[in-house]
Amino acid sequence: MQELDPDAALSVVRVRVRFGETDLMGIVHHGSYVSYMEVARIEWLRRRGVTYADWAAHGVHLPVVELSLRYRAPARFDDELDVHTSLAEIGAASVRFHYRLVRVIDDVLCTEGSTRLACIDARHALQRIGPEVADILRQPELSR
Amino acid sequence: MQELDPDAALSVVRVRVRFGETDLMGIVHHGSYVSYMEVARIEWLRRRGVTYADWAAHGVHLPVVELSLRYRAPARFDDELDVHTSLAEIGAASVRFHYRLVRVIDDVLCTEGSTRLACIDARHALQRIGPEVADILRQPELSR
Amino acid sequence: MQELDPDAALSVVRVRVRFGETDLMGIVHHGSYVSYMEVARIEWLRRRGVTYADWAAHGVHLPVVELSLRYRAPARFDDELDVHTSLAEIGAASVRFHYRLVRVIDDVLCTEGSTRLACIDARHALQRIGPEVADILRQPELSR
Amino acid sequence: MQELDPDAALSVVRVRVRFGETDLMGIVHHGSYVSYMEVARIEWLRRRGVTYADWAAHGVHLPVVELSLRYRAPARFDDELDVHTSLAEIGAASVRFHYRLVRVIDDVLCTEGSTRLACIDARHALQRIGPEVADILRQPELSR
Repeated sequence: MQELDPDAALSVVRVRVRFGETDLMGIVHHGSYVSYMEVARIEWLRRRGVTYADWAAHGVHLPVVELSLRYRAPARFDDELDVHTSLAEIGAASVRFHYRLVRVIDDVLCTEGSTRLACIDARHALQRIGPEVADILRQPELSR
Repeated sequence: MQELDPDAALSVVRVRVRFGETDLMGIVHHGSYVSYMEVARIEWLRRRGVTYADWAAHGVHLPVVELSLRYRAPARFDDELDVHTSLAEIGAASVRFHYRLVRVIDDVLCTEGSTRLACIDARHALQRIGPEVADILRQPELSR
Repeated sequence: MQELDPDAALSVVRVRVRFGETDLMGIVHHGSYVSYMEVARIEWLRRRGVTYADWAAHGVHLPVVELSLRYRAPARFDDELDVHTSLAEIGAASVRFHYRLVRVIDDVLCTEGSTRLACIDARHALQRIGPEVADILRQPELSR
Repeated sequence: MQELDPDAALSVVRVRVRFGETDLMGIVHHGSYVSYMEVARIEWLRRRGVTYADWAAHGVHLPVVELSLRYRAPARFDDELDVHTSLAEIGAASVRFHYRLVRVIDDVLCTEGSTRLACIDARHALQRIGPEVADILRQPELSR
């Protein structure tokens, strides 16, 4: 398997905690981090020229099939978080992303996570990640 | 327009507040009531023999096109709420439901609401509510 | 009641539809609009120098007590929406905001809505909106 | 560490998929499973006599600090899922639960998951799980 360039593989996506994403403990509900990782992953793709509509037109879908989270410190309403999002692995028919969610104001790591996404076609059958798709995924962010 | 029988038009559906449905004020987030009304409406239909899959097979979809909520008292985590759900109107191409969300333990009215649902087909075009569908909607709950 | 200046009362806040905010009809779930209006309202306040932490320190909370939505056209995953957010009324102990959610790419109005927020203190008792708070709410956006 | 009795450690909690918990792929959004596991875990505790209010009164809180999910098969709107919820480990200051989400109609395993919950006090400091709490957690379901 070809190595990934860690610099090219990284995008940092900023999100802000919504009021409704907190819970009665006064902190961000753990389920909200799943949403932040999804937002960051889609933005990671967009910065490499990939939009959902494009890939759907190519018959490529990327549902989450594994997810893990580890909490390090609480985040609170209105906090800005930088989601450091890295492509970690391109497999035969799946890709893996890692995430580090860091509070902007004080650089505290709030949560780490990982997701594996299966590559499937419109009929939900696994499909190999071809060289054309892999090349797109290996790109750094396009200049914005 | 034919009158609706208020007794036949009513179903009471119980929900329990989830932890993640609260917010940092320690009470149920107002967006969660939208979810409770949806759960209750789908159960209202099921108790009259209607399941989503059935209606989709008949080419009938019922998206929410108007929604209103009025808060009366806070609900909290783990509270059981009875959603008193009434069909209020069968229009030419839409239906309206009213909701009263009452806390089970002390009978306090927490929220009132209303939704209007458009009747559309698979291509998102409005369609008239035919007599067959109207008859189903006028039924009381089937015995369970 | 003193008139509000419509220009000063308006902020436009951009949001992007998240994948998880859609439903099986392939469009934005109606409950997601409640979240977008909340994001826009909090940003409206921030642009006038108000952050939640500040107001909580002054003992001011603004829970939603009435909410209405009217759908005009579907929005889809990844759409950018401009939430045109206007303070519509400063009452004795509540404020009302209006919202128009417009799709950026083609200027289509997707949803209109309104919320009334009660002004309460830390013990959940209604409190009058004093002249100091009203003056802040009447401000236009601070230059950014 | 004392062994756990697997029969006593298990509760099966039924949930039904809500419309708003699906996404544009027409299946349950992966974030919704986080909510189902939470519902099941709180019901697991309730069946052993533990309610959130009780434990908060004892100064015991149990936030999720690790979470993992593995998807096996898609679930759809209106599916009933049995969440097989097992206490897997009582640690010094945390507990671990395992989950198997099985579709009721055809016994298909849709998702597996695991959460670790820290035991903290009202000031968010870790606290040891004392013998009194451990005894409660080792109980089977109370007769209902």
